Amino acid sequence: MCRWLAYSGSPILLEELLYRPRHSLIDQSLHARLGVDTTNGDGFGVGWYGASNADTPAVFRSIEPAWNDRNLREIASHVESPLFLAHIRASTGTAVQQTNCHPFRYGRWLWVHNGLVRDFARIKRDLALAVDGSLYASIEGSTDSELLFYLALTFGLEDDPPGAVERTVGLVEQTGRKHGIEHPIQMTIGTSDGESVWAFRYSSEGRSRSLYYSTDVRTLREMYPERPRLQEVSDETRIVVSEPIVDLAGAWNEVPESSYGLVGGGQDELHPFRPR
Amino acid sequence: MCRWLAYSGSPILLEELLYRPRHSLIDQSLHARLGVDTTNGDGFGVGWYGASNADTPAVFRSIEPAWNDRNLREIASHVESPLFLAHIRASTGTAVQQTNCHPFRYGRWLWVHNGLVRDFARIKRDLALAVDGSLYASIEGSTDSELLFYLALTFGLEDDPPGAVERTVGLVEQTGRKHGIEHPIQMTIGTSDGESVWAFRYSSEGRSRSLYYSTDVRTLREMYPERPRLQEVSDETRIVVSEPIVDLAGAWNEVPESSYGLVGGGQDELHPFRPR
Amino acid sequence: MCRWLAYSGSPILLEELLYRPRHSLIDQSLHARLGVDTTNGDGFGVGWYGASNADTPAVFRSIEPAWNDRNLREIASHVESPLFLAHIRASTGTAVQQTNCHPFRYGRWLWVHNGLVRDFARIKRDLALAVDGSLYASIEGSTDSELLFYLALTFGLEDDPPGAVERTVGLVEQTGRKHGIEHPIQMTIGTSDGESVWAFRYSSEGRSRSLYYSTDVRTLREMYPERPRLQEVSDETRIVVSEPIVDLAGAWNEVPESSYGLVGGGQDELHPFRPR
Amino acid sequence: MCRWLAYSGSPILLEELLYRPRHSLIDQSLHARLGVDTTNGDGFGVGWYGASNADTPAVFRSIEPAWNDRNLREIASHVESPLFLAHIRASTGTAVQQTNCHPFRYGRWLWVHNGLVRDFARIKRDLALAVDGSLYASIEGSTDSELLFYLALTFGLEDDPPGAVERTVGLVEQTGRKHGIEHPIQMTIGTSDGESVWAFRYSSEGRSRSLYYSTDVRTLREMYPERPRLQEVSDETRIVVSEPIVDLAGAWNEVPESSYGLVGGGQDELHPFRPR
Repeated sequence: MCRWLAYSGSPILLEELLYRPRHSLIDQSLHARLGVDTTNGDGFGVGWYGASNADTPAVFRSIEPAWNDRNLREIASHVESPLFLAHIRASTGTAVQQTNCHPFRYGRWLWVHNGLVRDFARIKRDLALAVDGSLYASIEGSTDSELLFYLALTFGLEDDPPGAVERTVGLVEQTGRKHGIEHPIQMTIGTSDGESVWAFRYSSEGRSRSLYYSTDVRTLREMYPERPRLQEVSDETRIVVSEPIVDLAGAWNEVPESSYGLVGGGQDELHPFRPR
Repeated sequence: MCRWLAYSGSPILLEELLYRPRHSLIDQSLHARLGVDTTNGDGFGVGWYGASNADTPAVFRSIEPAWNDRNLREIASHVESPLFLAHIRASTGTAVQQTNCHPFRYGRWLWVHNGLVRDFARIKRDLALAVDGSLYASIEGSTDSELLFYLALTFGLEDDPPGAVERTVGLVEQTGRKHGIEHPIQMTIGTSDGESVWAFRYSSEGRSRSLYYSTDVRTLREMYPERPRLQEVSDETRIVVSEPIVDLAGAWNEVPESSYGLVGGGQDELHPFRPR
Repeated sequence: MCRWLAYSGSPILLEELLYRPRHSLIDQSLHARLGVDTTNGDGFGVGWYGASNADTPAVFRSIEPAWNDRNLREIASHVESPLFLAHIRASTGTAVQQTNCHPFRYGRWLWVHNGLVRDFARIKRDLALAVDGSLYASIEGSTDSELLFYLALTFGLEDDPPGAVERTVGLVEQTGRKHGIEHPIQMTIGTSDGESVWAFRYSSEGRSRSLYYSTDVRTLREMYPERPRLQEVSDETRIVVSEPIVDLAGAWNEVPESSYGLVGGGQDELHPFRPR
Repeated sequence: MCRWLAYSGSPILLEELLYRPRHSLIDQSLHARLGVDTTNGDGFGVGWYGASNADTPAVFRSIEPAWNDRNLREIASHVESPLFLAHIRASTGTAVQQTNCHPFRYGRWLWVHNGLVRDFARIKRDLALAVDGSLYASIEGSTDSELLFYLALTFGLEDDPPGAVERTVGLVEQTGRKHGIEHPIQMTIGTSDGESVWAFRYSSEGRSRSLYYSTDVRTLREMYPERPRLQEVSDETRIVVSEPIVDLAGAWNEVPESSYGLVGGGQDELHPFRPR
């Protein structure tokens, strides 16, 4: 079990979401409340886009537990960003190493994953063979999560993100079932190109890991006129999280089973997710 | 809150205590059951003595969480020892670095600590000044635990371990009270010279961290004739632990408040502990 | 032997100095050309001030060799700063740990050091006792370099940097000689409050580690009209380095023995340095 | 460029070869003398077999530079072994992570490599596809060296080590040439099953990295009757090294181009190596 967070909106210091909320992502690294594992201490990462859309996002990843990483604290308190993804890891078996930490990056794209490909060792080779030849050598780690990313890139993530993820999951389910695996995939996935964030929630068994998105800021302002921070951020500011980072009635909405959302650039959509 | 373990007896692979028991020390790094913190993920260490008493003990320490450290697993499954101390750390504020991991070593002596010197920043300098001039520069880390060790060495640990620890704690309490600190110290401490293990349990407030010692092996054999492992180990084998590593009725005895025990070399004593 | 660099001027990406020059600081971590040791692989650090003078500087430090640290590369290619200090370490014996990496920080002040206090173990305690009681507990590492910083803070670094460093060095020389140490100190030091950079070059024996400052930008522009980068940076831009990062005739000037320079905010001074 | 060492003979403390010789492997991590790179600071590893042949070898690997790794020093000064392989790494581009450190292990087999598969990114996928399906998911890192190991395992390393390595290199050369790579492979390789050590020296261009084996101990004893260490070790003791660890005339013999040697268990052979 991992935990992740995506932010899109007015530029803010990373620490505003990573450290300050009562149940911030960093707090969740030591004390997660939803899910089986309470500790996500097997590394972390944060990827952020700059003010200028022209740049490749920066990625800072480490195998230290997030709760005691001083460099993360330094960066979070000095770097502002209008769009970032952060992830804390609880390994499901693969090595604790920087190249297995999320977010994964390819060009302008970032990718985070919570969940697993079941019996991954048995179907890893078949899945790896499906990765485009020009992409294969760029795989640096050994996780299912990174392989899903490279499959999605193979299937056209850069042109049609939902379609590419649907094809990726379709392939995993076919391959898994061919090997007699009942429920091949369990996932929430966040991915971004620096302009929009796509967030997916799906599992073969229909009981997916938790995923929430924040209520529209205009609505929240009406509900909580006394909260100054809500007055300051832009209308289109959104947060997507594995589990809520503050207890605020009406602030969080569950992403429904087998669906995906699109956030950013004024857009705001929710669609069904159907593996192909 | 930290957790530690000391073993003295027939030579065994470290993994027999560090990994195999249901609530092994490594399991406690992720899921401690007694105490406030359930995660002890801020580094670990193990120090072991060889078969020959002539040697300095080996010390392996790392800032990784113990639960996912592959090198610890390798060493634990290949190194046998008749006497070893292991420790998993939950920092009370000082940096996560190798020199702050226990056990600390000086010559043939090892030292582990669970607890804290309260308001340590306020009295650290006074305590450090009390360390013998010839020892001061050997202090490598920044913890209260290591400083307690160097105070004990200053006060004669090598000649009279209980007396030296009593004088150390006496100094901490005097110094703390001079600075208006109500309960200056909370501790369980394990220390060894490679022949015996001394285990201390004390706190200024009289509510000390948990500490247990294993029942005499001869008694355990009678209680559990069906357990082959108990038949194999020598009569004088003993384990001292912050919290029990297996659920076995009658196997664990609490070290009483304000007392210390001596284990090893056929000896087996329990005495009151009185700070001087 | 270590290597350090200080930059003050127009905001630039850290990588412009840390990576891009032919003999950049990162290149020097693997292949230093001046001095005894060619490898500076025992950790590194960079501290940078933001555009706003109000903030505490950020500090990123790691025990990895700088040449293969991916996080440093990420940060350097995404963070811009008008004033930063960077350091690569070759340990003279103390532990390789984050708290021993430079720059050290206290409030708004950063501090880097190349050199050593000779026979440090013998005089460490005497020097530590001279640190102000309110500062002592903030010392986190075990290096001579950090202790020099806290002595300078004790002696008024924040009000009179040159005077405080002169008093610090005076104390080290007195203390060292009292212990029969012939040449107690060898140093180049860089320190900043976010507005100015002070750079010191001194050694008891009068043969100090190398230190250079860049020629006035207006002069360089006349000398090298074809270099576009020189046209872009502001008039008062200055670099101070342990060894030149590019081969450019006339670009580098040695800081004289026993002297210090002040750079930043339009100021530009060179003075004799006299331990008190 | 990396450096490696294999030892087979009377049980010795690892430190006797890793630290004590004038040009020990650890010294070579900072100051290698042969070859292009003088620094091998991108991680290290040591794998050792126990006294009992029944056990899997232990492997200790770390991404720290070997010259300052305290845990390596502890282990080397407390662990004795009759057969061990050690390796210091200078990355040729792949990530610095534990799973990329040598030795690699599979069952009872260890594997170390110095050299590279040229244009590895271009042919990695083709080579990976040739790995047996049951082995593929055990690949944890991203290096050419580990992939060579898994190819050799696929081609029967456990039954016919020289034949398996010849087939592996044959495949790499065919695959490389198919992609227009002139000299696809450069290598010295050491591998062991705990009883024998096989050492290979080969490169497509016929100018392979250096590799030496020690002279027969009986001969060395006659040459150097005054060296007590030579009197103590068993007749069949042998060392294979990338570069000599002591300057001793007549002690080191170059492994010829395109050949391999077999050491251990009284055997002692040298044969031509012909990729198939």
